[in-house]
Amino acid sequence: MKIAIVAPSCSLKREAAERVATIVAERGDCALVVHPQCFLTDGHFAGPDAARLAALREVMADPDVDAIWFARGGYGSNRIAEAAALDLPDAAKRKLYLGYSDAGFLLAAFHKVGLEVAHGPMPQDVLRDGGEAAVGRALDYIVQRSDSALETGLNGPAMAFNLTVLSNLLGTSIEPDMAGRDLLIEEVSEQYYRIDRAMFHLTGASAIRTIRRLRLGRVSYVVENEPEFSRDEKAIVRDWCDRSGIAFGGQADIGHDAGNKVVPFGPSRL
Amino acid sequence: MKIAIVAPSCSLKREAAERVATIVAERGDCALVVHPQCFLTDGHFAGPDAARLAALREVMADPDVDAIWFARGGYGSNRIAEAAALDLPDAAKRKLYLGYSDAGFLLAAFHKVGLEVAHGPMPQDVLRDGGEAAVGRALDYIVQRSDSALETGLNGPAMAFNLTVLSNLLGTSIEPDMAGRDLLIEEVSEQYYRIDRAMFHLTGASAIRTIRRLRLGRVSYVVENEPEFSRDEKAIVRDWCDRSGIAFGGQADIGHDAGNKVVPFGPSRL
Repeated sequence: MKIAIVAPSCSLKREAAERVATIVAERGDCALVVHPQCFLTDGHFAGPDAARLAALREVMADPDVDAIWFARGGYGSNRIAEAAALDLPDAAKRKLYLGYSDAGFLLAAFHKVGLEVAHGPMPQDVLRDGGEAAVGRALDYIVQRSDSALETGLNGPAMAFNLTVLSNLLGTSIEPDMAGRDLLIEEVSEQYYRIDRAMFHLTGASAIRTIRRLRLGRVSYVVENEPEFSRDEKAIVRDWCDRSGIAFGGQADIGHDAGNKVVPFGPSRL
Repeated sequence: MKIAIVAPSCSLKREAAERVATIVAERGDCALVVHPQCFLTDGHFAGPDAARLAALREVMADPDVDAIWFARGGYGSNRIAEAAALDLPDAAKRKLYLGYSDAGFLLAAFHKVGLEVAHGPMPQDVLRDGGEAAVGRALDYIVQRSDSALETGLNGPAMAFNLTVLSNLLGTSIEPDMAGRDLLIEEVSEQYYRIDRAMFHLTGASAIRTIRRLRLGRVSYVVENEPEFSRDEKAIVRDWCDRSGIAFGGQADIGHDAGNKVVPFGPSRL
């Protein structure tokens, strides 16, 4: 089992790469390749679009790589997601792709073309308090597809996204088919008014009206609203579910934290 | 000519209302009614949804009111926009509706049902440096439809929106038909990575692919990006126009500032 880390958004911290390599060595059940592109920088990004896309396509085409693990979020994977999903080599179809946050653009684009994707912890998460557990959970899923790594409320086809990321891919060429699925959302570092506005956008989209139910993960590091918003994320999400007739399925065990559980998007359609 | 101010988003500052009333009195060519709802507060909003909607519907139905002037932006008009545009009384069809920023949700919804709307300065703008000129320009347009108030690059059907507001209404029930129009966008208080992401979303939408061309207004108070983004708004917008095949039409004289010019959405379709 060989795992390749690439960084389609922002660059990976060297300390994170080293700590994940140590964890992998101690497990002894898989091999890890950290693509040098992970440490490139180009303004906000882990290298220019072309470099990020080339590294991703390179590991996708490598028949020896079993899983591609997105290094971290930030911003930028949307800029290469459509191109990354075009003209897939056969080797790309026999891999798992794991990540969350900004990497959700790739989860969407790749699921749409039939690849096996899952929403879950990323290498940079090792730097969080308790981050070793998050990375261990991701590896348990990548290597063994362990049930213990999974979000516990899953009982049918599901998808998971950062709310703002999902809002920004609706209506684009990488919008996936969500019909009949549980949709799990989480958020970080946004103001409540932005969360309310994104929920307006989300629940107003025809693609979202087809889901089975909406489940709310953790919303963390909420940025102060001036004046105070007077409603928290649970009230906001319930309100927009009620308004739009989308079933609310309760809380979900995902978020920008070490407790983030794995949500597979279901088997490949290839 | 009677003008009514209501606040579908956040509450109007009393000082702004007083200064606008003074300007109107000095002009002597119109009458002003500031609806008391403008001064309500409910958390983030100028009163609960029901109160904001009721005030708006009340002035829409008033046959003596010739123009409805949205008090200010902020956030919240999306929460009542769909309901405000339903079952229109005849009196609502014989008015002009003016505002920008968050009020863009109403401009979209109202244009979609055939009302006469325009993107332009709002009463709260009087508090800006040079704000009297902005308010005077809005009144020149409301009272006289003065050409001098108009954005100077208009040479065909146009629309104008705050970028983030437009991104958040795409795909919802209030998305207007933009085919063949110039689309003018402006932005305030966002980071470059968010502007880039919103442009990805915007230019990926089928509704936007039908526009004649995209013109870029001012992008002000850009929030610091960490790390630095390395591209400014002009480069970002040009890039996404190039990627999507949307014609770029150059700069536009709109923005969150006292220089903000008026952009009518064209005549009513009623």
